[in-house]
Amino acid sequence: MITVFSGGTGTPKLLQGIKEIVNLEDLTIIVNTLENDYFSGVYVSADVDTVLYTMADMINEKFWYGVSGDTFITNERLAELGTPELLRIGDIDRATKIQKTLLMETHTLSEAVSIQAENMGIKSKILPMSNENSDIKIITDIGELEFHDFLIKHQCEPQVLDIKFSNVSPAPGVIEAIKESEMVIIGPSNPITSILPILSLDGVREALKDTYVVAVSPIIGTDTVSGPASKFMNVSGVEVSAKGVASFYADFLDCIVIDSLDENLKEDIENIIENVEITNTIMKDINIKTNIAKIVLNTIDL
Amino acid sequence: MITVFSGGTGTPKLLQGIKEIVNLEDLTIIVNTLENDYFSGVYVSADVDTVLYTMADMINEKFWYGVSGDTFITNERLAELGTPELLRIGDIDRATKIQKTLLMETHTLSEAVSIQAENMGIKSKILPMSNENSDIKIITDIGELEFHDFLIKHQCEPQVLDIKFSNVSPAPGVIEAIKESEMVIIGPSNPITSILPILSLDGVREALKDTYVVAVSPIIGTDTVSGPASKFMNVSGVEVSAKGVASFYADFLDCIVIDSLDENLKEDIENIIENVEITNTIMKDINIKTNIAKIVLNTIDL
Repeated sequence: MITVFSGGTGTPKLLQGIKEIVNLEDLTIIVNTLENDYFSGVYVSADVDTVLYTMADMINEKFWYGVSGDTFITNERLAELGTPELLRIGDIDRATKIQKTLLMETHTLSEAVSIQAENMGIKSKILPMSNENSDIKIITDIGELEFHDFLIKHQCEPQVLDIKFSNVSPAPGVIEAIKESEMVIIGPSNPITSILPILSLDGVREALKDTYVVAVSPIIGTDTVSGPASKFMNVSGVEVSAKGVASFYADFLDCIVIDSLDENLKEDIENIIENVEITNTIMKDINIKTNIAKIVLNTIDL
Repeated sequence: MITVFSGGTGTPKLLQGIKEIVNLEDLTIIVNTLENDYFSGVYVSADVDTVLYTMADMINEKFWYGVSGDTFITNERLAELGTPELLRIGDIDRATKIQKTLLMETHTLSEAVSIQAENMGIKSKILPMSNENSDIKIITDIGELEFHDFLIKHQCEPQVLDIKFSNVSPAPGVIEAIKESEMVIIGPSNPITSILPILSLDGVREALKDTYVVAVSPIIGTDTVSGPASKFMNVSGVEVSAKGVASFYADFLDCIVIDSLDENLKEDIENIIENVEITNTIMKDINIKTNIAKIVLNTIDL
């Protein structure tokens, strides 16, 4: 079994490659739920939905959020009526969110997601990291902001002074998935707001120490491939570089895949992590995604 | 000022006629809320929305429910996902229901509807009969059913043995509207499930006794013009005829408009109600609707 830790942007791209070459029944994806919240009356588990849509071949690849080719009839009408939505929810996407909200009246988030994955014909296991409600606040120069307010309303522009988030318990199956896996892949997601919440769950770091773990760096040079990771890394005291990522995961990481442009960092990182692989990590087409997936999966004999 | 009591089917048709000839600012519509409930995670005030859409010229005139020309993208996707909706909610209609649900987090239903009416450019006052949650159960030969289950899932087919509903308080403005009106019009809605809930509000019957009240019969011959009224009237001991309607409202009614086909009942009804007007009440086009509205409004000098 292979387990992937995922956020909502970088890792889903890699999942498209992994999906091409592994046995889908042997794949478990543990997904960040830190920013889950109610919007427009429905429960939004944005990263989980992105992973669902990615695995169901429905993802909108422009935004890595929502459904490809979706319409926005209800969303546009809400704006006309004077109640614009903070999250732009499409009509097909809204059905996912309504169903999840209704299922959660009698099921945990894990159970709801499992039902939805089955409904969408997904053969891999998608595990929300936790069934508990969590909370994340971004402390900025303009005040304390909700994560989605920082991300969407303020377009990540304010200066980030601190990040606070609540600790939650792992959902059933999370620790077991790590322990039963031959390989855990830390996808190229935001180390602070997507991966750290998973690492902070009780028992995860300990389980990772006993498992083969390979990460794909979300940083090329001193820049993030996608998303606001660099601001969050800076404020968390993590160097914005592949080396910073390697250091951040050093206590459990066995291998890191870094970009060809960072070849100069290889020797330095090898002082921290045993195995460093180099390839093109800009995932602009399916061939590149599949190539990275192959490199990751070939770092040990599975 | 003129006040109209409305349910969700017959009276909205008459409102289209009334709308053509009165000063819209002088019109108040008190709407049944007995069957309000949550569906698909949103608060549904079906009769209120039908009146909103009627007054905003958006009503779907085939079903007297929902928005004309609406799409059903989210609704159809929910069915695909295995969570079919009991109420078929269109994409534009869903925006109304989402907004109402969100507004009700900080407002009463009355306030929410007032905001929505303004957003839709409606100049008349639309007053939900109550801001309290009510409950209606239809006791049938196959057991106790929720109203919408009886209406939609069971298509009104079970034999009705009894109807139970909870008493609620009138919303602010309801009694005042009746007292300040020169005329109250009881629309041709279901006397038992649409009008009786309004009549049962504390103070309404008393206020009606001091006001000029005219009703339009929803019954022609021994048949209802629309909806399942006859089953409900039968079980409530109300004769299914214009005479039965007249008797039911006798304690406060000053005038009743009955259909030309019921001319033979005129004398009989005149023993119960002072003034009986006769016209074609099958509201199949706007001319007929406007004609009935004129007859109603001309029964006294306004």
